[in-house]
Amino acid sequence: MKVVCLGSGNVATHLACAIKATGANIIQVYSKTLANARALASVLNSQAIDHLEQLNREADLYIVSINDDAIESVVRQLKGLKGMVVHTAGATSLSVFEELGINRYGVLYPLQTFSKSRPVDFSTIPLCLEAGSKDDLQTLQQVAVKLSTLVYEVNSEDRKLLHLAAVFACNFTNHLYHLSASLLERKGLNFDILKPLILETAAKVQNAMPYEVQTGPARRGDEATMERHLAMIQENPMLTDIYETLSKSIKKTYL
Amino acid sequence: MKVVCLGSGNVATHLACAIKATGANIIQVYSKTLANARALASVLNSQAIDHLEQLNREADLYIVSINDDAIESVVRQLKGLKGMVVHTAGATSLSVFEELGINRYGVLYPLQTFSKSRPVDFSTIPLCLEAGSKDDLQTLQQVAVKLSTLVYEVNSEDRKLLHLAAVFACNFTNHLYHLSASLLERKGLNFDILKPLILETAAKVQNAMPYEVQTGPARRGDEATMERHLAMIQENPMLTDIYETLSKSIKKTYL
Repeated sequence: MKVVCLGSGNVATHLACAIKATGANIIQVYSKTLANARALASVLNSQAIDHLEQLNREADLYIVSINDDAIESVVRQLKGLKGMVVHTAGATSLSVFEELGINRYGVLYPLQTFSKSRPVDFSTIPLCLEAGSKDDLQTLQQVAVKLSTLVYEVNSEDRKLLHLAAVFACNFTNHLYHLSASLLERKGLNFDILKPLILETAAKVQNAMPYEVQTGPARRGDEATMERHLAMIQENPMLTDIYETLSKSIKKTYL
Repeated sequence: MKVVCLGSGNVATHLACAIKATGANIIQVYSKTLANARALASVLNSQAIDHLEQLNREADLYIVSINDDAIESVVRQLKGLKGMVVHTAGATSLSVFEELGINRYGVLYPLQTFSKSRPVDFSTIPLCLEAGSKDDLQTLQQVAVKLSTLVYEVNSEDRKLLHLAAVFACNFTNHLYHLSASLLERKGLNFDILKPLILETAAKVQNAMPYEVQTGPARRGDEATMERHLAMIQENPMLTDIYETLSKSIKKTYL
């Protein structure tokens, strides 16, 4: 299978490497920044391009893995290809392809957080698939099952909901980790001491619903402790706001 | 070593089992609810009591592992003991012991989240120690190093800060997991699909600072996606408030 990768960010990098590992041939890497295209292309033993006029039009699969707000302008330039065009975005609908005159298209959304510097085991990443036709879905499934054991068919509306849920479960959660690290920094305490707690909190909900394993002062209705906590952060209105908002939500959940 | 365990909740249960596993003899378990004392005592091959008049006064160590607001009333009844009295609470100061006339005392605060039904590996739990004297600290350290490889000396003020940080890193985080599960529930989507993301988000900060690995629309300043997300939860003022508050905090962090 001949694959062109459009994009060179975190998702593009990990996905392209995983696809190459299945035996596919990544023939080109496109990025509007040539240095970025080259960095990824060199890993994949592939050609780097920074203009879509240079696009190889004989590939079987074109993977558009770029920022949501750039998808439209790139896909617009992929009209008339014989191969299938897919994007990897959670919040962009499948309909973007039909509107832009693409014939064969789909979505392959990996529900995971990626950093370039951190290796990932693609086989445990949920892949959410959607395609413009049954045939194209089948083609995409054949690609996906080589990448991961967790392959789901998810329509655009459900995928948007998953993307939103992921913001809560991943992006907001990571920010809470940051806020806790900042609290410790005040006194020169090392963030290391919180790491086992962070891991265990995530491990716990692998086998239980988070609703069932909620702990802490807000869950217990321990107002005295909450007041002491608020007194400790009273000079920081943002932190106070977050503490109050989340505590209120926990209390409401268990009313 | 002879140990009395006062309390039969999550922390008491896991700590007592871990101490017994080091070879200590848990001679009594106290709870104001006899059934609870009996449940734990039976696991430890110990005596259950529900009145402090029945307390064995010959133990080397008394571990008070009960709700913060009950510590004072229980410790008040432990005056005159030869053995050392410790509590396990993050938010209660060491000074509670001196004020109540205890001679030998300390704190052993395990910085972890416990559920009775979930086994824990105590050797990877950070234990924060504090004691009333150098001798007592040494005694407590001897107990602690048998339990865990992560033993820290932490004063009451720093321990309170750790407890607050743990609310952000654990309690609030778990609530965000719950909110994401609730979002999926709307459409009958299974929470399982988010589990790899949750684990990876926690795993990532074991080797990087959360500040460095923040992702998501608020981090990118992707206002269009944030507006679409807010439109999806506009009927839920609490969720909207949380989304806006945390997004604002993320944006402010990376200004």
